[in-house]
Amino acid sequence: MKNIYRFGYQKTDGSVNLVDLLGGKGANLAEMTNLGIPVPPGFTITTKMCQTYLKNNNFTKKIYKEFNKEIGLVESILNKGFGSEKNPLLFSVRSGAKVSMPGMMETVLNIGLTSKTIPGLISKTKNERFVYDSYRRLIMMYADVVLEKADKRTTKSGLSIRLMMEKLFSSLKKRRGYKNDSDINVIDLKKISDKFKKVIKQELSIDFPDNHMDQLVGSIQAVFKSWNGERAIKYRKIEGINHKLFTAANVQAMVFGNMDEGSATGVAFTRNPSTGDSNFYGEWLPNAQGEDVVAGIRTPHPINKNSRTSMTKHAITLENEFPSIYNQLITIKNKLEKHFKDMQDIEFTIENKKLWMLQTRKGKRNGMAAIRIALDLYKEKLIDVQSVFNRVNSKHLNEIMHPMIDPVIEQQMKPIATGLPAGPGTASGRVVFSASEAENIAKKGRKVILVRKETSPEDINGMNVSEAILTTRGGMTSHAALVARGWGKCCIVGCNDLVIDEKNKKIYIDNLVVSEGEWLTLNGSEGKVYGGKVKLIKRDVSNNTYFKKLMLLSDKNRNLKVRTNAEQSKDVLKAVEFGSEGIGLCRTEHMFFNPKRIQFVRLMILAQNEQDRKKILLKLLPYQQNDFYKIMKNISPFPVTIRLLDPPLHEFLDLKKQDIVELAEITGLSKQQIKNQTDLLHEVNPMLGHRGCRLGVSYPEITKMQATAIIKASIKLLNEGIKVFPEIMVPLVGSINEFINQKNIITEIFQDALKKEKVKIKYLIGTMIELPRACIIADKIAEHADFISFGTNDLTQTCFGFSRDDIGSFLPHYLNKKILTKDPFESLDVDGVGSLINIAVKKARKVNKKIKIGVCGEHGGDEKSIYFFNQKDFDYVSCSPYRVPIARLAAAKAKHLKL
Amino acid sequence: MKNIYRFGYQKTDGSVNLVDLLGGKGANLAEMTNLGIPVPPGFTITTKMCQTYLKNNNFTKKIYKEFNKEIGLVESILNKGFGSEKNPLLFSVRSGAKVSMPGMMETVLNIGLTSKTIPGLISKTKNERFVYDSYRRLIMMYADVVLEKADKRTTKSGLSIRLMMEKLFSSLKKRRGYKNDSDINVIDLKKISDKFKKVIKQELSIDFPDNHMDQLVGSIQAVFKSWNGERAIKYRKIEGINHKLFTAANVQAMVFGNMDEGSATGVAFTRNPSTGDSNFYGEWLPNAQGEDVVAGIRTPHPINKNSRTSMTKHAITLENEFPSIYNQLITIKNKLEKHFKDMQDIEFTIENKKLWMLQTRKGKRNGMAAIRIALDLYKEKLIDVQSVFNRVNSKHLNEIMHPMIDPVIEQQMKPIATGLPAGPGTASGRVVFSASEAENIAKKGRKVILVRKETSPEDINGMNVSEAILTTRGGMTSHAALVARGWGKCCIVGCNDLVIDEKNKKIYIDNLVVSEGEWLTLNGSEGKVYGGKVKLIKRDVSNNTYFKKLMLLSDKNRNLKVRTNAEQSKDVLKAVEFGSEGIGLCRTEHMFFNPKRIQFVRLMILAQNEQDRKKILLKLLPYQQNDFYKIMKNISPFPVTIRLLDPPLHEFLDLKKQDIVELAEITGLSKQQIKNQTDLLHEVNPMLGHRGCRLGVSYPEITKMQATAIIKASIKLLNEGIKVFPEIMVPLVGSINEFINQKNIITEIFQDALKKEKVKIKYLIGTMIELPRACIIADKIAEHADFISFGTNDLTQTCFGFSRDDIGSFLPHYLNKKILTKDPFESLDVDGVGSLINIAVKKARKVNKKIKIGVCGEHGGDEKSIYFFNQKDFDYVSCSPYRVPIARLAAAKAKHLKL
Repeated sequence: MKNIYRFGYQKTDGSVNLVDLLGGKGANLAEMTNLGIPVPPGFTITTKMCQTYLKNNNFTKKIYKEFNKEIGLVESILNKGFGSEKNPLLFSVRSGAKVSMPGMMETVLNIGLTSKTIPGLISKTKNERFVYDSYRRLIMMYADVVLEKADKRTTKSGLSIRLMMEKLFSSLKKRRGYKNDSDINVIDLKKISDKFKKVIKQELSIDFPDNHMDQLVGSIQAVFKSWNGERAIKYRKIEGINHKLFTAANVQAMVFGNMDEGSATGVAFTRNPSTGDSNFYGEWLPNAQGEDVVAGIRTPHPINKNSRTSMTKHAITLENEFPSIYNQLITIKNKLEKHFKDMQDIEFTIENKKLWMLQTRKGKRNGMAAIRIALDLYKEKLIDVQSVFNRVNSKHLNEIMHPMIDPVIEQQMKPIATGLPAGPGTASGRVVFSASEAENIAKKGRKVILVRKETSPEDINGMNVSEAILTTRGGMTSHAALVARGWGKCCIVGCNDLVIDEKNKKIYIDNLVVSEGEWLTLNGSEGKVYGGKVKLIKRDVSNNTYFKKLMLLSDKNRNLKVRTNAEQSKDVLKAVEFGSEGIGLCRTEHMFFNPKRIQFVRLMILAQNEQDRKKILLKLLPYQQNDFYKIMKNISPFPVTIRLLDPPLHEFLDLKKQDIVELAEITGLSKQQIKNQTDLLHEVNPMLGHRGCRLGVSYPEITKMQATAIIKASIKLLNEGIKVFPEIMVPLVGSINEFINQKNIITEIFQDALKKEKVKIKYLIGTMIELPRACIIADKIAEHADFISFGTNDLTQTCFGFSRDDIGSFLPHYLNKKILTKDPFESLDVDGVGSLINIAVKKARKVNKKIKIGVCGEHGGDEKSIYFFNQKDFDYVSCSPYRVPIARLAAAKAKHLKL
Repeated sequence: MKNIYRFGYQKTDGSVNLVDLLGGKGANLAEMTNLGIPVPPGFTITTKMCQTYLKNNNFTKKIYKEFNKEIGLVESILNKGFGSEKNPLLFSVRSGAKVSMPGMMETVLNIGLTSKTIPGLISKTKNERFVYDSYRRLIMMYADVVLEKADKRTTKSGLSIRLMMEKLFSSLKKRRGYKNDSDINVIDLKKISDKFKKVIKQELSIDFPDNHMDQLVGSIQAVFKSWNGERAIKYRKIEGINHKLFTAANVQAMVFGNMDEGSATGVAFTRNPSTGDSNFYGEWLPNAQGEDVVAGIRTPHPINKNSRTSMTKHAITLENEFPSIYNQLITIKNKLEKHFKDMQDIEFTIENKKLWMLQTRKGKRNGMAAIRIALDLYKEKLIDVQSVFNRVNSKHLNEIMHPMIDPVIEQQMKPIATGLPAGPGTASGRVVFSASEAENIAKKGRKVILVRKETSPEDINGMNVSEAILTTRGGMTSHAALVARGWGKCCIVGCNDLVIDEKNKKIYIDNLVVSEGEWLTLNGSEGKVYGGKVKLIKRDVSNNTYFKKLMLLSDKNRNLKVRTNAEQSKDVLKAVEFGSEGIGLCRTEHMFFNPKRIQFVRLMILAQNEQDRKKILLKLLPYQQNDFYKIMKNISPFPVTIRLLDPPLHEFLDLKKQDIVELAEITGLSKQQIKNQTDLLHEVNPMLGHRGCRLGVSYPEITKMQATAIIKASIKLLNEGIKVFPEIMVPLVGSINEFINQKNIITEIFQDALKKEKVKIKYLIGTMIELPRACIIADKIAEHADFISFGTNDLTQTCFGFSRDDIGSFLPHYLNKKILTKDPFESLDVDGVGSLINIAVKKARKVNKKIKIGVCGEHGGDEKSIYFFNQKDFDYVSCSPYRVPIARLAAAKAKHLKL
C-alpha cells in the first residue's frame, strides 16, 4: 500500500474512490488532477500513515525519503526550489478526513519561509510587504498549531500563544492607528515577526524553526496529531464519527493571488445556490488572497454580469478583466459539473495570469435551488430520476413552504434556548402565557407567541391565533407538536432551558428574563429560540413551477398513496392543494372542542343516564353531520377515514368557574356535584385510560350518533351528485370483541339508513392499530376489518412505554448518551415498533389478502419512516397537510430504494 | 337418535357420557341405574327433543306414543297406574341442562292428581291431609310454571298468579291462626285448592286441567319452553353459556317420604364437608318430605353418631331407627364414591320402608375438607396424585389461610356494595378516610378500614395498620391491590358503587350513608362489602397437617421454583414459612418510603447538581445496605432478585405544608422554588414517564449507590459465613443500550468492591421484561443479561394500553359485555401478553440457552397463569408471600397438565 499519493499536473494514482485513504480533500484534488484541471501540485499522505504515525510517534527514514522524492517532483513541475534562496517554493499543509469535520481542520500556510528564502521571494515577487505579511502569518499559525497544540507545550504565562500574539498585533495596530491588517507597513511587519519569535522563545522555551524542512515535517505531524486532539475527539463523539477513520495530510505548493496585478482569487458556484438557475455565479478580488474574499474586508467583485447585486452593479467582472482565464474557468466548471454530476462550490487563484483550482466540493444550496438544480440536471440528462428525488430532502421542502430568517443573518444569531423542532418555519411574536390571552391580544392585530408548559385541547383557539407555540415539556408528538404540525405552524416543544413563572408572567432562561409582551423569534425547523423580533422571508409555494414539477415527477414514480390527517376545512383544502389523495385520519373529537359545541359535549358527559345522554347527542348530531358533509365534499372523490371519538372524556372537562355555574344551571346539579363528577373522571394515566373504542363500548349511543352523522352526510352528498367514500375507523382496539361490538353498531345504523333512503354507498369499516396487542391479534382483526391503519404515535408510546407528553424529561439524556440515536416519535423505531408492525402486517395479510393497510401516525410524514412503510407494501401513508409534499417525494424515493 | 332414555330398576342406555343429550340430572340418574342403585323409575326426554319442540311448538304423534310406552313401563315396574283410580302413579317433571343453572330449574311435582285419582291415593295412603296438601302444591306449581310462565298468559289483575295464590294462602293461615303450613287441616286444604282453581279460571281464563296426561304434557312443554324464558336467557348471557345446549326434561315417578311411619327422607355427604374426615355425614327426618329437611321447619336428626351436633346430641339416628336401610345406604354410598371417585352429596327417600335414591352429585366442601378429602382419596388409592392437585384450588387455600365469615351466615347476608376481590380474607373495622387517621385510631387499639379513592406509596403506614383497604378506583394490580396482596391483607378495589365525600367524611352508596367511625365488613376474596361488624373465623395454617402434606406432595411434583415478592422482614419471614425458594422481586423503593428516610430521598430529588445528589445518596447508603443485609440473611441460602429504583420520582414528593417548610430550611431554597421543582416533576402519564432504568440512566449516581449497598451487604454476610446470591435486576429496559449502560455501572462497582475485599461472590445481572419492545429485542438483551424476569403487570398495561389504576372505569363494562372474559391483570392474557412472552422466551433462548427466566408480576401467583409459565419452561414464578402456597400447588398441577 502506498503511503503517499501525488496530485497536480502529473497523472496521479489517487481518485475519489480512494477517499478512505486520502480523505475528502485529498481525493478531490486527485480527482481534479485526473480531469486535467490545473491544481497546484503536491501530495497527500494517507490516513493509514496517520494511524502508523500516531502509533509510533515518528516517521521512518523510508518516509522521509518519500517526502523528499515528492518535494523534488513538485519543484521540477514549478521550477522552484523548496528552501531555495533564489526562487523559493512554499507549501501549505492541511488535514482532511474522509468525513467532513468543519472547524476541526488544521492548516499551516506559507511553509518554507526562512531567513534564507525570504530575500529570494522578495526579489522574485518584488513585493516585500507581501512576503513579510506571509511570514508573520506562518509564525502565528505554526506557533499555535504545531508548537502549542500538537506538541502540547504550555506557555509560562498560562495564556495561549495565539492569544498573546493577537494581543501584540492589535496593540501595534492601535498604537499606529491602523484600521486594517492591510494598512500595516513592511517595517512594522518585520518588527512584529521578530517580536513573535521572541515570545515563542520566552514562553515556550523553543526557537521558531528557521529551517524549511523542519517547518514542513512539524506541520505534517501536527496535522496527524490533531486527530487525537481533545476538540476532535469530542466532535467525533457527538457526531458519531468512527475514531478509526484518521486524517490524511495534504502538502500542496502555495500559489499567491496577491502577488501582483496579474494575480487574483475567487470563489464560485457552478449554478446559483439561492435560485438554482444554471448561470455561473461567484465573486473575485484582484491582487488578493482567498481569505480576503471571505473575510469581507474588501467588497468582492462579481465574476460576471449574472453575479452582480445592487451593491456591485458597476464593479469590474472577472469576465471583463481576465476574459481568457474566465473562459478557462467556464470550461473547468462545465467539466466539474459533468464529472461530479452536481453543482460545485469551487475556489481558484490566479497567480501571475495563471489559473489554479484550489478546491471543488458539492455546493451548499437552499431549498429552492436544490429542487431546481436537481430538475435541471435531470433535464440535461446528467442524473436519473431517482437522483432527482435523492437530491431533495424534507428540509428543502419545509424551507420553501414556511417563512424563514435569511440564513446569512441567522448564522450570526445566537439562540437564547433550544428545544425540539416540532413545527417547521420561523415566526416572531409577543410572548403570552395563556390561550385566552393569546386570543385577546391577537384580536387587536398583534402577533403573539403562546408559551406554555404544555398545551391541551382547550387551548386550541389560542394556539390557532398565535404565530408560534413554545412549550417547556413534551416530545415530538405532544399535543402542541401534533396540532402545530397539522397547521404547518412554527412550534418548539420540550424546551427545558425555560422556566415559566405563570403567576408573574415571566420566563427565566438562566439569568435572562423575558416578560409578557416582549418579542421572541422561533425557528421551529431547528428548535432555536431567539430574543427579539427578526425580519422573515415569506414563502408561497402554490405558484412555484419547480415545486409543482418535482411533485408531479414524484407522483409518477411512487406506489404509496399519500393522504392527510385533517378535519378543519382550512386544513383539508390546504391538503388538497398539496396533492393529498384522501383523508387518512379525520379526528372527530377536534370538532367537539369548538366553543359552540363543547357545552353539549360536557352535558353529554355529565348525563346521569343513557336516556339523558341520548337526548344531548341528538343535539350534537346536526353539527357532526355538517362537519362530515363539508369534509367529504372538500376531499371528494377521495376517501375519508373517520375515526370515532378517541380522547378520554375528562379532556373536555377543564372547567372554569363560569363553566361550572352554567352547567349547574342547565343540569340542575349542584356545583359540588359537577366538581365531584369531573373529579371521578380524573385518570392517573389518561393515555392508558377510558378512551378510544372503550368509550364506544361503554356508551354505544356515542358511536350510534357518530355513525348516523356519517351516513346521513354521505347520503346527502350522494343525492347532490358528489362522490363519497367513507371509511369508519374504530380507535384503540386491543381485543377482537371490541371491534366486533363497534362494527355491529355501525353496520346496523348504516344498513338501516341506506335501506330507508334506498341508496347504495360503498363504505369500509376498519380499525386503528395502535396497541401491541392489536399487532399480535392482527389476524383476528383482519377477519372482520376492511382496513387497518397504524397509529404509530400510540404504538410507539406503548411499545417503548414512553409517554409522548413526558419524554422531554429523559429523552435529552438518552440522545446525549447514545442510548437512543433518534427520537422514536420523530422517525419510526424500525427494530421495535417496526417489528410489531411487521408481525401485524404478515398476520393480517395471511387471512385477508386484500386488506387495505395504511399509517396515520406522525411517522406518515417522515422520510425514513416512509421508506419502511413502502417496503412493507402499505397502501398509503397519511400525514398533516404541510407534510403531504414531503411524503409524496419520500414515497418516490422509497420506491427504488434498496434497504 | 333416541328421543327418550329411561332410568330406574331396568338397564338403561343412558350414562354420564351422554350428558349432552340427557343433561346433568338425567345423566346421573341413568348412571345410578347402571350401578344398580334403586332410583324411582322414569325417563329423560333429550335436549335434542327440546330443540325440536321449540322449533315446531308441538310434539309429533310418534312422541306421544313413546311417552305412553315409557309411562307403561314405569307403571309395570311400580305396579301402579298413571291416572288409575285405585292405585295412582304420580310423576315429577324437572328440567336439567348439561351445565348447572342454579335457580333456573323448573319443576312440577305431584303430576297425576285429579278428581279421579285423589280418592284412590287417599285410600292407598290412608292420609287424606297428605294427598290434599300434595294437590294444593301441584296447583300452585302448575299455575305458575305452566299456565303463566310457559304459556305466557297474563292475569287480569296484572299481579302474578303465584303471588295471588300465596297471598290467599297466608291470609288463610292468618285467619285461622296457623303458624306453619303443616298446621293446616285437610278441610282448609280442600277449600284452598278450590279457591286456587277459581282464581286460575277467573284470572287466566282457563281451567286447571283435571286430566293426568294433560298435566304431564303441559309440564314437559313448560320445562322445554323455560329454556327460552327471559330469566334463563339473561342468566346464560351473564354466565357465557351456549344458547344451543338446551335442556332435557326428566319425568320421574313420585315417591313419598311422608307417606307413613315407615317413610323418611334425608340428605347426606359421603364424607364430612366441613372437616373432610371420612365418616358418613347427614341428616334425616322420619315421615317427611325432602323440603322439610332443607327448610329448617323441623330440626333434622343426624343419620349417625358422627353427624351429631351439640343440638342433636340425643336425637334418634337413621342408623338406630332403620338399621338395615342405613346399611343399604352405606353400601350405596361406598359404591357411589368408588364410582365417582369423589365425595358425593346424596338425597334419599324411604317410602314405606323402601329406599330410593333421588340424587347424587359432587359434594360441595370447604377449603379444609377439599384438601383432606383429596389426600385421603389418594391414600385410599381411589385417585392419582395429579387428581389430588386438581381437587384443590386457590380459593380453598385462601380460605384456610385467611379469616372468614361462617359461610352459612354469610349466605344470608346482603352486600351493600361490590368491587374487585383484590386481597383475600375477611375483615371488620371502623371506616377512616386517610392514612394518617388510620394510624391515629389504630394506635388506640381500634380496628380500622381505610377507605380511599386510590392509595399511593405515601399511605403505606396507614394501610399497614388497617384491617382492610377499600378503594373506589383501580384494578387488580393498582397500588392498594398490590400492597394488600403482598401482606395477605383483605382488600377490595374498584368499588364504583361508593362515592366518597372526603371533606365531610362520609361514604354514599345509593341512599345509604356510612360515616367515619362506623363499622364495615369486607370479604376481600369475593369483593363484597357488608355494613356493620361480623364475627370472623380465625385461621392459622402453620400447624395444619393436611396443608403441610399437600405442600410437600406438590413440591415433589413440580418443575417450577416458587419465589416471593417481598422486602420487609415480616413478609420475607412469612414467605419462608410458606416455602418460598428465594426472592424474585425485592422492590428497593419500598424502603425509601420509610418516614425516617423519605426526607433524604426528597433532598436527593431536589438536589441542584450531581455533587449534592451524591452527598445525600451517601447518607442513604447505610440504610439500603442494612436493608439488603437483613433480606439476604432471612432468605439465605436462596437467591434474592433486587430491582433497582423503579417509580417516578414525584411519587416521593407528595408534600404536606410542614414538609415544604422543612425542606426549604434544609436546602436553603424558597418554598416557591420547592413547589416549582415538585411541579416540574409532575407527569401526564407517570406510568410511561421518567421511571425504571430511565432514572438510573439520567442519574447514574443512584444506581451506583444501590449497587454499592448490595455488594457491601453481600460481603458482610459472606464474612459472617452466610451464603448470599444477589441477582440485580434493571427495571423497565426497552433498548439494549439502557441495559448495557446500567450493567456496566453495576459491574464496575461490584468488581471494585470484590477486588478490594479479596472475596468472590457469585452474582447475576439481568433485567425485568415489562415492555413490548423488550420482548421484541429479547435476543439482544439475552446476549448481555444473565436472567430475565417478566414484569407481567406492566407488560399487560402496555400490551393492552390499560392503566391498572384507571381500568376500573371500563373493565366492568368489558366483563359485562363479554368483550373480555377476565381481568387481564388477574389472570394472564395468553393470546396477547402471552404471545409477547412467547416471542421473548424464544428469542432469548436462541442466543442464550441457559438464561434464567422467571416472572415477578402478579400473575406469578395465579393458577392459570402458572400453567402458562410452566408450559414455557420458566425457571421460577415469584408472587406475594400469601400466594406462595397457591403457586406451589399450581406448579404441581401445571406439570402434568395438557394444554
